[in-house]
Formats: sequence, structure tokens, C-alpha cells
Amino acid sequence: MKEYNEYLQIVTDAISNLRLPGHPSGLYDPIRYTLNCGGKRLRPVLALAACEAFGKEAMTAIHQAIAIEMFHNFTLLHDDVMDKAEVRRGRPTVHVKWNEETAILSGDAMLTTANMLLAVKCGERLPQALELFNGTAMNIYEGQQYDMDFESRTDVTVEEYMEMIRLKTSVLLGCACGMGALMADAPFETQVRFFDFGVNLGLAFQLQDDYLDTYGDPETFGKSIGGDILNDKKTWLLIMAMNEDKSGRIKSMLGTTDDPESKIKAVRSIYDELDLPQRIHELISAYIDTAIKCLDHLELAPEARSFFMDLALKSATRNK
Amino acid sequence: MKEYNEYLQIVTDAISNLRLPGHPSGLYDPIRYTLNCGGKRLRPVLALAACEAFGKEAMTAIHQAIAIEMFHNFTLLHDDVMDKAEVRRGRPTVHVKWNEETAILSGDAMLTTANMLLAVKCGERLPQALELFNGTAMNIYEGQQYDMDFESRTDVTVEEYMEMIRLKTSVLLGCACGMGALMADAPFETQVRFFDFGVNLGLAFQLQDDYLDTYGDPETFGKSIGGDILNDKKTWLLIMAMNEDKSGRIKSMLGTTDDPESKIKAVRSIYDELDLPQRIHELISAYIDTAIKCLDHLELAPEARSFFMDLALKSATRNK
Repeated sequence: MKEYNEYLQIVTDAISNLRLPGHPSGLYDPIRYTLNCGGKRLRPVLALAACEAFGKEAMTAIHQAIAIEMFHNFTLLHDDVMDKAEVRRGRPTVHVKWNEETAILSGDAMLTTANMLLAVKCGERLPQALELFNGTAMNIYEGQQYDMDFESRTDVTVEEYMEMIRLKTSVLLGCACGMGALMADAPFETQVRFFDFGVNLGLAFQLQDDYLDTYGDPETFGKSIGGDILNDKKTWLLIMAMNEDKSGRIKSMLGTTDDPESKIKAVRSIYDELDLPQRIHELISAYIDTAIKCLDHLELAPEARSFFMDLALKSATRNK
Repeated sequence: MKEYNEYLQIVTDAISNLRLPGHPSGLYDPIRYTLNCGGKRLRPVLALAACEAFGKEAMTAIHQAIAIEMFHNFTLLHDDVMDKAEVRRGRPTVHVKWNEETAILSGDAMLTTANMLLAVKCGERLPQALELFNGTAMNIYEGQQYDMDFESRTDVTVEEYMEMIRLKTSVLLGCACGMGALMADAPFETQVRFFDFGVNLGLAFQLQDDYLDTYGDPETFGKSIGGDILNDKKTWLLIMAMNEDKSGRIKSMLGTTDDPESKIKAVRSIYDELDLPQRIHELISAYIDTAIKCLDHLELAPEARSFFMDLALKSATRNK
């Protein structure tokens, strides 16, 4: 096994070596811009590491790893149009830098390119790789639709929220893990088990994201804190507070926009009263435990086991 | 070989038998709505007929035929968002009936579903089917990008225009033909030749569309006439007129919107002076001839040959 940063380097190199056509530049420039966003590249790293953990060289899964990263970046691009987000990782989003038509069309081209990459050197595994990849994609669209549906609802339950983030965020981490195992020709049960590892990791990851958006350090987190609160975003924190805050203070604050700083402070203090920061971390730990249990059922070399265990523990405690 | 309407019936049945999930309805209802648009279903009919012409049952290619139709409808859905079109085949477009986010997301889901359908019962042909399908998809995005680029340009040449419609419209007809031949396990050269038949048919088809938008009978054509003229759309007719009209009248009319009826009449009379209706029909006939020559190089049963020849001749003379 390699270090995280070594896999990251392989991914970065592969992305810079992608030979996208030059013309029409209105189609391909936004794709290059989107792919050069940096980021943790967690999904392709998981795919490469999984492939190596199950006995094949990491490079065996490189095209499939990049396909998943391409797909992930496509979803961010289209989500930004849908959410009218203006900034992504400190840079203007594609529909701001170019325009909306460009963002839609180059996103479509990224999705097709992802499907093309998936098939490269996939061999006999192609039908199964396509099923895993496209099935995951459908889950992600469903998750995004639920997320948008939740905006106009006030009765979203915690169970519905967890199902939404499972679909929208977690299954793609599961897919990356399963794809790496598939490319290593691991048995089907192993692929499924490792898919589950990724899903549980993803749930923990998203809950930590919810936590950081409200409680993170703006300097390390890299974006301003409290965005979810200001947008009345139905996160685990807000849903729990809406359920448990009997004073009606939370509901009365929804939709208010006149004093952002006070709103963040007031909502956060209700979260604190309900002990939500502590409770969300217990939940995160529970998902990490489940993820690690998935590892225990697999015959992994100690080195591989600790790679994935470290990764899981780090995502639960990350501050950016 | 069957009649066009028999293939059409197979396609219609297969589309109504697609089992899309019920929830989230915000994602799947717009897909059902888009697929129930009616239309000629030319692409899937071509795929089924090609498969039968090259010796396999039409049903061998049914999933691939529906994949192509699904893809085609996805491009219409996203194009309508990009073009801000409000009506499609007499009904409100998805982004009007629902909203733009819904139109983007359900389009994405249609593209992924098309990729899934393509793989069903594809067998050993899967890598090649994916390459044909996804390569065609990339061409179509490039064509759409050129089409959008042309809006802000006044120096578009006829060659550039023909290349744009080849990419945006014609290759998908080629893809349908090639896919049918592939699913029938026809030799690669046959697939390529039949792809070319479809491309030439597609070029003729698009030029006839340009002609009908300006010269069609609104009753039979099913939409109002002159839309291209009012939008200063760079069609073959307008580009030729801009090249050849030395009086400067055409250029002076671009961008005017005050009197739609007079603009249509005035532009049309310049087209008439330059003999463009006659000349576009000569060009259409030339593409149909090329398409028919592609058929001559193939070993087709007389019945199959006349099916495709009829189809080609009818598209050159269709009035809707």
C-alpha cells in the first residue's frame, strides 16, 4: 500500500494527462477548469487503494478512478447551476465565469466522458462496472431531487435526511470502493462489503460536513461558516432542532434574513442547548464504527486495513 | 422487413413498458412526460430496421434503439433549457411546466438511463456499442456548442454550418443505423457504410427542416413558420443570403424585431430572389443521392434496400 498523497499524485497526474480536444473551446475549457479544482480527490484515491488492497496494481483501476472523479465533478457543476451557487472552492462557478448554457452542456459532456473512461481497459468486468457506476449515478440524482424537495418542506424526518445523504453523497464513495475491488477481481461479496464500507464512511463524512458548516473554523474550513443556517438548509442539526426545540424559536427564525450574524449565533445557541454538537459526533463515530466493522469481515493485509481505518478515523475528525 | 409503422409500434410499446421508478416523482415524472412526446421516432426505427436488414430479428436491438431515443429526448430537454424554448411539439417544455432545476436533473437521469439501456442484452458487442454511442454523444455536444457560438458570429461559412449540423443532428441518425448493424453482427465495414447512410440522410433531413421553418405550411408543419428568420438563426438559407446579397438588405434586417410579419416576408423575398428554395432542394437531393449510394455498396435484400431508399426519398420531400 502507498500513502494517501502517493495515490493523490497518481490521480493528479492522470487528470493532467487527459487529452481533451481543444475545440470547441466553449465546451472543453469549462471541463478543464472544473477538473483543475483541486480538492481531496477522495473517490479516485479510494478506488486505487481498494484495487491495490485486493491484490492488483493501483494503476489497474486508474481509468475507472478518473471516471468516478469526472462524474463527481460533473455533479458539482450541475448542482451549482441548480443551487445558483456562485463560488466553488474559492473560484467562480462555471455558470458565473461563462454562462448557464455552457455549464449545462459541458456538464453533459463530462458525464458522457466519464462513461467513456469507465470502459477503458475494463475488460470482462465492463457490464458489472457499468451497472455499479450507472446505478450509483441514478441514486445520486434521486438524492439531489430529495434535497431540492426538502427545501419547501418543514416536516423532513431524520430518517428521510439520512436516506437523502446516503443517496446524494455516500453511495459514490461506496461506488469508488466497490469499483476498486471489482477491478482487482475481488469476489462479489467482497465488493459489496467494501461498497458498504464506503457508504458508511460517506455518511460520517457528510455529517462532519454539516457540523463544520456551523461549527468549523473559517480559516481552516476554507469557506465562511453558517451558510447552512442562513439558507435554512435542512441538515441533521436543523432537523433535530426543529423536532426537539419546543420553544418555537427555531421555526420563528426560518426565512429571516435581516441580521445574518445574529441568526447564526441564535440558531447555534439552540443547537448547543440541545447538545447537538456532541450528539452529531456520537452519530459520526457510530458510522465510522460500522465502516470499520465492514473492514473486519474482509481478508485484508494489516497494511491495507490500517490505510482504510486511518482514512475513516481522519474523516470523522477532519476540520476542513 | 416490416413497414415503418410496425417498427414504430414496437418502439412505442417498448417505451410504454419501461419501468421507471415512481419516486422521487420530481425526477421521474418529467422523464415520462418527455418520453411521451410522440414524434416520428426515426432513430429507434432506423436501428430496428437496420438490425433486421442485416439478418437478425428487430427485437435484438430494441434496448439499444430505446437508448438512442432516450438520449435524443435528453438532448431536446437540455437544448430547450439552453435555448429558453417554451414549447416543444405543442406542449410546454419541462423547464416551463416544472422548473429549470428539474429540467437539468431529469435530463441528466435520462442520459444515465440511456447508458444503462445500451448495455442490456448487448453481449460481446458492448465495448463497441459504448464507443459508438458515447463518441456520437460527444459529437452532438460539440455541434450544440458550435450552434451557440454561431449566434454571436456574423461570418459563419456554409462549410462551418454543414459541419455543425453534421455533428448536432446527423451523426445520431448515423449512430442509430450503425447500432442496428452492430447488433446484427454485421461486419465492421458494413456498420461504417450504414453509419454514413444515416449521416447523409440526417444532413438532408436537417436542410429540409431549415426549408420548412421558412417555407412550410403552418397547418401541416405543426409549428409557426418563420421562427428561424425572427431569431436570426444562422441556417443554410440565411448564411447563403448573407454571402450573396450584395445590397446589404439582409444584414440590415438582423436584430430587428419591431414588425415580425414584414421581416419574415422581406427576408423570404430575398431568399426567393437568390433562388435559395430551389438550390436548397438541389443540395438535399445531392445528400439523398449520396445516402442511396451508400446502400448500393451493401449486400441488402431488395426489400430492405427499398425500405431505406423510400425513407430517404420521403425525408427529402416531407412537409412535416
